[in-house]
Amino acid sequence: MYDLIIIGGGPAGYRAAERSSASGLSTLLFEKRALGGVCLNEGCVPSKTLLYSAKLFDYAKGGSAKYGVTCDNAKLDHAVVVARKNKVVKKLTLGIAAQLKAGGVTVVSADAAIVGRVDGGYKVSADGTEYEAARLLIATGSAPALPPIEGLKESLASGFAWTNREVLDTKVVPQKFVIVGGGVIGLEMASYFRSAGAEVTVVEMLDSVGGPIDREIASLLQKAYEKKGVKFLLKTSAVKFAQGEVTVKSADGGEAQVIKCDNALVSIGRRAALPEGIEKLGVALERGAIVTDEYMRTSALNVWAAGDVNGKSMLAHTAYREAEVAVNDMAGAADTMDYSAIPAVIYTNPEVAVCGDQGNALDPSLPSGKIVKKVSMNHSGRFMAENEGGDGTFKMVLDGAGKILGVSIIGNPASEIIFGASLMLGRELRSADLRKIVFPHPTVSEIFRETIFQ
Amino acid sequence: MYDLIIIGGGPAGYRAAERSSASGLSTLLFEKRALGGVCLNEGCVPSKTLLYSAKLFDYAKGGSAKYGVTCDNAKLDHAVVVARKNKVVKKLTLGIAAQLKAGGVTVVSADAAIVGRVDGGYKVSADGTEYEAARLLIATGSAPALPPIEGLKESLASGFAWTNREVLDTKVVPQKFVIVGGGVIGLEMASYFRSAGAEVTVVEMLDSVGGPIDREIASLLQKAYEKKGVKFLLKTSAVKFAQGEVTVKSADGGEAQVIKCDNALVSIGRRAALPEGIEKLGVALERGAIVTDEYMRTSALNVWAAGDVNGKSMLAHTAYREAEVAVNDMAGAADTMDYSAIPAVIYTNPEVAVCGDQGNALDPSLPSGKIVKKVSMNHSGRFMAENEGGDGTFKMVLDGAGKILGVSIIGNPASEIIFGASLMLGRELRSADLRKIVFPHPTVSEIFRETIFQ
Repeated sequence: MYDLIIIGGGPAGYRAAERSSASGLSTLLFEKRALGGVCLNEGCVPSKTLLYSAKLFDYAKGGSAKYGVTCDNAKLDHAVVVARKNKVVKKLTLGIAAQLKAGGVTVVSADAAIVGRVDGGYKVSADGTEYEAARLLIATGSAPALPPIEGLKESLASGFAWTNREVLDTKVVPQKFVIVGGGVIGLEMASYFRSAGAEVTVVEMLDSVGGPIDREIASLLQKAYEKKGVKFLLKTSAVKFAQGEVTVKSADGGEAQVIKCDNALVSIGRRAALPEGIEKLGVALERGAIVTDEYMRTSALNVWAAGDVNGKSMLAHTAYREAEVAVNDMAGAADTMDYSAIPAVIYTNPEVAVCGDQGNALDPSLPSGKIVKKVSMNHSGRFMAENEGGDGTFKMVLDGAGKILGVSIIGNPASEIIFGASLMLGRELRSADLRKIVFPHPTVSEIFRETIFQ
Repeated sequence: MYDLIIIGGGPAGYRAAERSSASGLSTLLFEKRALGGVCLNEGCVPSKTLLYSAKLFDYAKGGSAKYGVTCDNAKLDHAVVVARKNKVVKKLTLGIAAQLKAGGVTVVSADAAIVGRVDGGYKVSADGTEYEAARLLIATGSAPALPPIEGLKESLASGFAWTNREVLDTKVVPQKFVIVGGGVIGLEMASYFRSAGAEVTVVEMLDSVGGPIDREIASLLQKAYEKKGVKFLLKTSAVKFAQGEVTVKSADGGEAQVIKCDNALVSIGRRAALPEGIEKLGVALERGAIVTDEYMRTSALNVWAAGDVNGKSMLAHTAYREAEVAVNDMAGAADTMDYSAIPAVIYTNPEVAVCGDQGNALDPSLPSGKIVKKVSMNHSGRFMAENEGGDGTFKMVLDGAGKILGVSIIGNPASEIIFGASLMLGRELRSADLRKIVFPHPTVSEIFRETIFQ
């Protein structure tokens, strides 16, 4: 009997396995596809390799001329981009495998099904073999939400429609590309494929792209991409898929519209992916996801759940932290999960990054006592030096006592500086504390500190 | 009579003026050259515009091929690069002028001389006019150290030898370029001019480049530049300048060596630049710099000094903070200067950034209780995605209780993430605190958090 069985080898699963073996628990991990999960194999990391190539191609195509650098005959070889992506992913998955091995974690490459409770723990079966452990961590992640839209199933089967998986492995850049869903995945793929030469239309059901980010920032991002030639249809839903076309309909009424395209990406959200036999545990579910508390415990004794499967945040970095909290709870170490300072990034160009309270919900006429400070990214000399003719926006939300509640940024390298907001929120910094921190000059990161003086 | 006279409009001076006028002090600022000082006009900001062009050129020349992006006939137009630099600088200096004006600061573009004490304050003269103020802030910055090396004076006059000022304004990229002094300025200029096509030799008196940074990081940076074709002569000093040649001599003895070159940059350090009439104040000096305490007070009543002129740190961001401390002291607000968490960056490619205690001085055999953690930057998937075939190093120094004492990084974007170390040191974070902070995935910034698990 193992001390812990983990089902799922994505960010939550492999991080939990590393930590649990480090704290002396004998650990068995099941992964049915590839270590690293969706994030590493079909999500965050592969998309970043594509997007970096797109960025370089944008410069080569003419973007670098204003910096005094010119060249002719710029080409993006999509096959090379994908091959490099596969190489990077392979290196990282091998790294995880090596780390788990070094930590003494037993990894079984198989689809595990929960058999049920046994004396002192739980039984799991995979490939006809049964395994037992005192504890169970469910880290089975999520899968693309694929609602019953007419023709979608067939279009996915034929290869005309893609999910996050197929879009990253296509050998050919579609000439006309429809993206259904203008959230993070949709926008990042719009970014790559537009740079790579596709004619891109983004169809978004809501009246704003980017999901729950600050609406002003979302609007700036949309404008930046419209300038690059991406077409946005907001308050619009896909109602039918057929070979070579997607039919969409506006919430404002009017005729359905048929958009001809070579391929369509469906990126309208993700749903928790539950393991087979979950019903044997009797864990509470809510809207299809496993209910967890602040220790990542489920309603069943000695069963924890971390990562997308609990439907709380659906971000790899949340999964890491949840996994750590779960393992600390198993080990009896005091630790709780806090969702109030989790950053989120959209790796478009310009990047968008947010953390905590956003300007969004704030109505300045309300006596909330909150203050929203907003400055141009051109307050940073480094930003000006590296974004010729461009601009960006930095917003910080503070309470009446100067406590920092949230940050939203559009402008590079938002992704690499937003952790500062996590730190500030996590440590409950006030603007008076931030004043005493020396930020290096000239950097874009200085904008945090500059903002409090504005 | 003004409440405050500030001599010098660089980072210390203009920041102090902004803050003092904001706190209601009538403020007069003298600047003899250009608002923004050396940093903005002849230093940090202009060099960053050049270096960004160099980075893009490196990609266009072939660096982007491994990312699937190719082009022909890549060219760097140095004149365009310099013109853009001038445009960025102009925009920023105009911004400072506008901000000072809006704040009600009186700016006099003249060289101010201290006349002496008057009843209730000090008298300063400039262009034949006299001005009085109750308080004085000296923010006259620094100037390049130019030791009495044979022929140097004449070579500077003829335009063969350059300081930080001339190097940023040259119309022509020298074919053969000698850089005397392998500190921050020397390395950044080696970086630009090497990318721009020059044959570069760096002559450094010490046995390591980069000044007081971690020696391992310094050595990695040197190796990276040797790979790009920069030649380094360590433990070597320039002993003679003549038109078209620099004579150098190794500290290890042997013959003097003559290096033929088109131009030579002298970047061997900077010395405090004292205002005329400083002797009238009777302020204490030490090695040519004004002695200041934790409130930035000098030894003379109601005279403060901030920025390079006090010789403490010689960094623009230190100057900002010193200026704020000085003004807070004038306004009676409790504040003190802390030099323990000041970051420093070398904007080479790869970038180097450090903050706080560095591995350097630590001998692992000593029972100091300190721990140095060191990880490859390839622990970050984002780093791998954007640095094909490259690597970097991240080092963190902790005390026995896990308190973070210092960080050293080589690898992009070190410059933009090092403020995290300033925050962690400033707020006295321990590794246990850092574990609870959620860093966005995939970013390079995650390396802070990853390191504590290694």
